[in-house]
Amino acid sequence: MNSEDLYSNIRRKKSYLCVGLDSALEKIPEHLKKYKNPVFEFNKQIIDTTAAYAVAYKPNLAFYEYRGSEGWKDLELTAGYIKTHYPEQFLIADAKRGDIGNTSAMYASTFFERMDFDAVTVAPYMGEDSVSPFLTYKDKYIIILTLTSNTGASDFQYFSSADGEYLFSEVIRKSKNWGNKDNIMYVVGATKASMLETIRKQIPDHFLLVPGIGAQGGNLEEVSRYGLNKQCGLLVNASRSIIFYSKESDFAEKAAQESQRIQLEMEKLLRESGLH
Amino acid sequence: MNSEDLYSNIRRKKSYLCVGLDSALEKIPEHLKKYKNPVFEFNKQIIDTTAAYAVAYKPNLAFYEYRGSEGWKDLELTAGYIKTHYPEQFLIADAKRGDIGNTSAMYASTFFERMDFDAVTVAPYMGEDSVSPFLTYKDKYIIILTLTSNTGASDFQYFSSADGEYLFSEVIRKSKNWGNKDNIMYVVGATKASMLETIRKQIPDHFLLVPGIGAQGGNLEEVSRYGLNKQCGLLVNASRSIIFYSKESDFAEKAAQESQRIQLEMEKLLRESGLH
Repeated sequence: MNSEDLYSNIRRKKSYLCVGLDSALEKIPEHLKKYKNPVFEFNKQIIDTTAAYAVAYKPNLAFYEYRGSEGWKDLELTAGYIKTHYPEQFLIADAKRGDIGNTSAMYASTFFERMDFDAVTVAPYMGEDSVSPFLTYKDKYIIILTLTSNTGASDFQYFSSADGEYLFSEVIRKSKNWGNKDNIMYVVGATKASMLETIRKQIPDHFLLVPGIGAQGGNLEEVSRYGLNKQCGLLVNASRSIIFYSKESDFAEKAAQESQRIQLEMEKLLRESGLH
Repeated sequence: MNSEDLYSNIRRKKSYLCVGLDSALEKIPEHLKKYKNPVFEFNKQIIDTTAAYAVAYKPNLAFYEYRGSEGWKDLELTAGYIKTHYPEQFLIADAKRGDIGNTSAMYASTFFERMDFDAVTVAPYMGEDSVSPFLTYKDKYIIILTLTSNTGASDFQYFSSADGEYLFSEVIRKSKNWGNKDNIMYVVGATKASMLETIRKQIPDHFLLVPGIGAQGGNLEEVSRYGLNKQCGLLVNASRSIIFYSKESDFAEKAAQESQRIQLEMEKLLRESGLH
């Protein structure tokens, strides 16, 4: 999927919501545990009810890996289900990978060929050759960790150079030359909304993946004020606040209601920015 | 396993060799493909013939994940085999994980509880809360990416502050206070041997995991000269140069020969340093 297609989905849905599938087995409703693949069943119902309000889904790999090969099976089934039934959805593997060249090439093959994800989150610490193997795929994206939403973000991301540049800005400055807005996006946490203004000066045209609204407390209006660009340029993620809004048998319905609430706020913010 | 046990294995084996199990299905000998789990069979034979010369094994997760749930099965079988038959071996998941707190806790559970690895490699970019969940396990280690062996290492790891400190030094300076030498190690590439002297001043007592000898061209003698400390303090990894030394039916025997060659060099270097 290229950024034109993504923007056209955003306009059609009046939404830039990404639903995070942090689907831990222990947290899903009891009544689903009778299914052969309870986590897949949970995801399927969440996807079916929220797809009208979302433009992207983001399984976080940790929540699949911790159950080993069984968890991977759920991940594969989920990715396959989305690609088959909702091919317009932008599918992100929140994997935070990054390794030496030949190893990153294996990861790229895993997510882009084996499972047909549209994008993978990657960590920048190991530099260009750790991410460039992902950039050889047409219409696929890397999403580079830049300024994250957690407290530890301040440990190194604000490490600053002699001329006052932060590490996260250096990550953007260098990496934007490794590809372009059609194969690179950046992760910027919603809890760092005030920095979005600075970041937008560096990369006015790239899409940003913004985690941290909902359970982590970031503010959608503030994120949108500083982050929206002329192609929208934002995918705002909510995970637990949607998928575990209810832990009872009405979980999918409640997830849809919460997604719609966010979508309506996004519709208003898009309208105010003249984007629809 | 604590660092005393690890050092005692090193003294007994006269080796600080870690064998990297980058066991890509496409690269293993044809005659193994008749087995139900050919990659596991390959690993098992490599482990059986090299265990006498090694003190650690390091499966690189990328080479398992790219085959999805089947690859994870091979990883689980391999980890289980080592822990059952060679419990004295230090088992490293080369996963390069790191995420926000609740997600890192899932990764820690995957590698330390589900599979009983002794250590996991982690990326430092997201800061303290991204690695601290791994530190709550007794006798388990995180191995923090510090100065890596790839060309991209120069992109950000040498980003320097106003007072001339490199990012990789800042990573060490901060992270060494998050735990101690019994739960934190550091990745320092063999291709950066000259920096080991500087790094040893910051962390004289910690173990370092050193990839990059063999296929990547790092020099064992130089690494050892600057890196050895009074508890050895080094685990030097070779992957492809051992496991794919031969791609024929004699692969396990050749892997053993190459491991022994390295072990004998290590024995000499330990002796010269007065460590055995």
